[in-house]
Amino acid sequence: MGIVLCGILLRHPGVELSWVTSESFKGKKLSDVYPHLKGITDLICKEEDVPALAKTVDAVFMALPNGMSMELAPKALKAGASVIDLSADLRLKDAKVFEQWYKMPHKSPEILKDSVYGISELSDLKGAKVVANPGCYATASILALKPLIDNGLIDPETIVVDAKSGVSGAGKTLTDETHFPNCNEGVSAYKVATHRHTPEIEQALGADIKITFTPHLIPMTRGILATVYAKSRKAADEEKLTKVFRDFYKGKKFVRILEDRLPSTKYVYGTNYCDIAIKYDARTGRIIVISAIDNLMKGGSGQAVQNMNSMFGLSEGTGLDLVPVYP
Amino acid sequence: MGIVLCGILLRHPGVELSWVTSESFKGKKLSDVYPHLKGITDLICKEEDVPALAKTVDAVFMALPNGMSMELAPKALKAGASVIDLSADLRLKDAKVFEQWYKMPHKSPEILKDSVYGISELSDLKGAKVVANPGCYATASILALKPLIDNGLIDPETIVVDAKSGVSGAGKTLTDETHFPNCNEGVSAYKVATHRHTPEIEQALGADIKITFTPHLIPMTRGILATVYAKSRKAADEEKLTKVFRDFYKGKKFVRILEDRLPSTKYVYGTNYCDIAIKYDARTGRIIVISAIDNLMKGGSGQAVQNMNSMFGLSEGTGLDLVPVYP
Amino acid sequence: MGIVLCGILLRHPGVELSWVTSESFKGKKLSDVYPHLKGITDLICKEEDVPALAKTVDAVFMALPNGMSMELAPKALKAGASVIDLSADLRLKDAKVFEQWYKMPHKSPEILKDSVYGISELSDLKGAKVVANPGCYATASILALKPLIDNGLIDPETIVVDAKSGVSGAGKTLTDETHFPNCNEGVSAYKVATHRHTPEIEQALGADIKITFTPHLIPMTRGILATVYAKSRKAADEEKLTKVFRDFYKGKKFVRILEDRLPSTKYVYGTNYCDIAIKYDARTGRIIVISAIDNLMKGGSGQAVQNMNSMFGLSEGTGLDLVPVYP
Amino acid sequence: MGIVLCGILLRHPGVELSWVTSESFKGKKLSDVYPHLKGITDLICKEEDVPALAKTVDAVFMALPNGMSMELAPKALKAGASVIDLSADLRLKDAKVFEQWYKMPHKSPEILKDSVYGISELSDLKGAKVVANPGCYATASILALKPLIDNGLIDPETIVVDAKSGVSGAGKTLTDETHFPNCNEGVSAYKVATHRHTPEIEQALGADIKITFTPHLIPMTRGILATVYAKSRKAADEEKLTKVFRDFYKGKKFVRILEDRLPSTKYVYGTNYCDIAIKYDARTGRIIVISAIDNLMKGGSGQAVQNMNSMFGLSEGTGLDLVPVYP
Repeated sequence: MGIVLCGILLRHPGVELSWVTSESFKGKKLSDVYPHLKGITDLICKEEDVPALAKTVDAVFMALPNGMSMELAPKALKAGASVIDLSADLRLKDAKVFEQWYKMPHKSPEILKDSVYGISELSDLKGAKVVANPGCYATASILALKPLIDNGLIDPETIVVDAKSGVSGAGKTLTDETHFPNCNEGVSAYKVATHRHTPEIEQALGADIKITFTPHLIPMTRGILATVYAKSRKAADEEKLTKVFRDFYKGKKFVRILEDRLPSTKYVYGTNYCDIAIKYDARTGRIIVISAIDNLMKGGSGQAVQNMNSMFGLSEGTGLDLVPVYP
Repeated sequence: MGIVLCGILLRHPGVELSWVTSESFKGKKLSDVYPHLKGITDLICKEEDVPALAKTVDAVFMALPNGMSMELAPKALKAGASVIDLSADLRLKDAKVFEQWYKMPHKSPEILKDSVYGISELSDLKGAKVVANPGCYATASILALKPLIDNGLIDPETIVVDAKSGVSGAGKTLTDETHFPNCNEGVSAYKVATHRHTPEIEQALGADIKITFTPHLIPMTRGILATVYAKSRKAADEEKLTKVFRDFYKGKKFVRILEDRLPSTKYVYGTNYCDIAIKYDARTGRIIVISAIDNLMKGGSGQAVQNMNSMFGLSEGTGLDLVPVYP
Repeated sequence: MGIVLCGILLRHPGVELSWVTSESFKGKKLSDVYPHLKGITDLICKEEDVPALAKTVDAVFMALPNGMSMELAPKALKAGASVIDLSADLRLKDAKVFEQWYKMPHKSPEILKDSVYGISELSDLKGAKVVANPGCYATASILALKPLIDNGLIDPETIVVDAKSGVSGAGKTLTDETHFPNCNEGVSAYKVATHRHTPEIEQALGADIKITFTPHLIPMTRGILATVYAKSRKAADEEKLTKVFRDFYKGKKFVRILEDRLPSTKYVYGTNYCDIAIKYDARTGRIIVISAIDNLMKGGSGQAVQNMNSMFGLSEGTGLDLVPVYP
Repeated sequence: MGIVLCGILLRHPGVELSWVTSESFKGKKLSDVYPHLKGITDLICKEEDVPALAKTVDAVFMALPNGMSMELAPKALKAGASVIDLSADLRLKDAKVFEQWYKMPHKSPEILKDSVYGISELSDLKGAKVVANPGCYATASILALKPLIDNGLIDPETIVVDAKSGVSGAGKTLTDETHFPNCNEGVSAYKVATHRHTPEIEQALGADIKITFTPHLIPMTRGILATVYAKSRKAADEEKLTKVFRDFYKGKKFVRILEDRLPSTKYVYGTNYCDIAIKYDARTGRIIVISAIDNLMKGGSGQAVQNMNSMFGLSEGTGLDLVPVYP
């Protein structure tokens, strides 16, 4: 995820990327490690030394394994930098819930009340000093559900989120599940009812809501499609529901409410868009919302930059005006 | 689908494939049209003339567009052949339901009471003269739901089926949706709440059950993964639920109940297996059943041959003892 | 290809995209036809009327089937617009060679002497009024071969180009070859020794050179990898050969000469880069050059915009400063 | 590769698979490690103890890392079993050539003269006690070149083999190159002019022939397409060349010479076929032969079983009468 972030920041007109750190690659040119960046940057990976490095910049992005930024974020803040954290460390307001899902103690519970959970379209980020960037699945799910919840349109006990992700969501670590011959031509569910993005989604939806969340691995590189099911509180129709979403996301340029089409991850490839369509199953009284994002962009680095833009008073789309890679 | 069926029948030790018909390719060698069959068969595609052709054989498989076998099946039966029909024409017991979903009149409603809906594991096919071979999605969904329904374990008003299919499910017809550059790296839902396999599934589950069914197109060639959600009637646990499934499918060699793994379409590739795993989300009280099939085998031609085997008193696995193509 | 071009032009800081024409979609919003453009443009497809439309703009891009721009380009020029043509009509200097490979008469042979064949790095485009944008395979092949030819390093009678393309190279037209279930998990050669990009490559390499060119279709959407073989005139070494290429492309930002890596289409995905590596097989005396491009960018629309930039005196990279979509 | 072999042997009518060994999985059920085998076998992986185990069987297949079977094969032979070895250890007749390409000493050079290099169609295997099963690339290349060489049709100094392989050819080991997000939508060459299958091919073609061989990694699971180039000794035509191949492979059921089509790896998927087409480029005097195999079948386990059949006097196709998995 960090490398996608670097790519965006290197082209961002309001950003100078001063340094990157990497334990594995310290001393190496970033473009030797990631050859797609050849000719784009000559940055050399530094050793991680947040207290010193953070003094030299306005903002620090942290794309680290869970458990690390809870220690480093306070140091960066103390050094005067704002923090955008892409790990799970700062997302859950309740340290107990964090500990229950992540099976590790939370070492900086005091930072959680200041940290803003940053779904860009739903959060007040102006002037925020520390932002917890949401999980990829959480972004797709929350954007699909929030208009229904806030307008009281669904029975919150009936929510099911069935999400499909490209393999890049699993990260850089080599595993049997991400070995090409194993996952090509294969679809499977994983972490059924136990995926750690679940409590984030529930927290964003509001008090005591419990959802069933099932992630699936799909043989493609990028993209998440979330199919969200919930019982409508009353008979509904698709046009009105669509209008609710259009109104809810009015002026939010990265959320596109589709009317005559269903979303495809292909239509948002490589960009920060979230495409949403709303259907109603009159036979069963269920509302079905489908949202599509690029998991590495709106589901990760794109949203992180969108959040940074808002924190610093820039237009939310600065550096993100990309056209989806189609076909 | 017909071509996969030919492949199985050409290797079936109890079958002689006497003829194939094709409007598009009549007069051509089958192996010129489908070069993977070179050296395997010298059959030449005949013009369709069921009344005459059916007299020469014990059984006729029909893999035709909807609306055709309702006219041809009675003729084949009259000519003395048994019929295994892979279209939707003979699946729904109520011609009105057929007409409502398929938007065409049913011309042979009288055949519907004799036709057996052939999920091989659930149907009594011995001696049947005409079998309606189920839809691909329907097969995966019904096999996942039937043990729960028959044991009264779930609230039938809460059933949601979220299914993911490879592109071969869309057939041979060229469409924008199946054009490689459009569907590769793209996942999308389609026919949300309106897919025609829905009434088949409901009919198989029993009186008045209405489900929400959403199919998705996945960038792979073969395979269906169905993720099925329903509220448990009471607190449950995965081990007992798994035992229910194991007992239900005891002696059924093509249904494999997984215990320490979740199904992947990769593990059933090219074969007639249906892999099933059962999970329980204690937080929400939902049972989640996941089933995987090869949509062209157990979801189509494989099951058709399995059904033929049972109709003619052969062992159900004859001609189907294939090893999944892995990796 | 036209739609990728629109995407680039809509974000180009020196361009206002005034109109687009389409016979199939006239009267429709471009973003209804191509939903990935929703929120990016409100342009409506116009009817083609080049003589009138060309008067309103500085430049016209033509992305049409072969045989059309030979008639329209002269009209656009007469109306005062510069022309960048993406078809094959204006590429071959000798109308007879065109007619031999394209099996149609050339209706404007007089335009051929003014038209500049636009491999951006090799052509003098400043002030050009009409540019023939090269074929995708031709671009990858010529960039790999030209430094060897111009430096007299290889025996031109021994050149073999083995090229591998993603399926988007076949265009929007639906065919059996681009039907997902047919081409996924399949690699095949096509138009062996007869592909129409052959004479372009030969023309660019110089007098009387004849090459063997074999294109292959690969199960991916974008990208061309060309593997070029030729006998070295004398014993060689990779370092010196690499230096020849580095010198040859000095200052050309979109050609990246790799040293410790081999090119992958993945490293140039979605961008205008051409990555090249040079190897030497001392056992057989062959030089092997491998080049990778995004067939729709450097192999099509990207290079067209790069050419336009040079024609109008803009920096060649304007509007093309994209970071490869990786992973 | 071993697991594909197990799959074939488990269904082979003339074979009883007595045991399998695995260092990594000893004590585990094979079907727990490879869930696609659930219900097909209950075999438990044994510890490797060839001297004792080999006494219990007629033949031992060895699918081990290079360097191991040169020690184990003599022990198995001594214990009375025939050996089919899938590693490179026994392929090269000259131990020095082995040591040069594999960078390890050969510990059993004396076995090399007895070992038969087993391209099934080209080798006399009847009664052979030890067979070196060829490399995947070597199989595709040799089958494409041998008829030309044996008939003196080409200049052997002009041979170039450009081969494209699916990712399963890289084996089970997790690497950056086989991580799905890295290799999907990416094509690249590797080990240019240094791949270890080169000396096998040269040895099979005959004295002093040196070829240029370039392997490529393609984003698919299975399949190798080899495109072979060589200068014809005299003007040729495709029909006559095709007849040469047809005659050469007469009676060899797994080699299919195509006439109106070019091979695709898709047409041989999951089977032991090798499809070959021959083209002639009259402009340059080059013959181009294209061959397609399933790298894990004819390129590995399928050919190993075909070789075993011949060694033991069974019909060469026993246990291999599979229909290509299409689509």
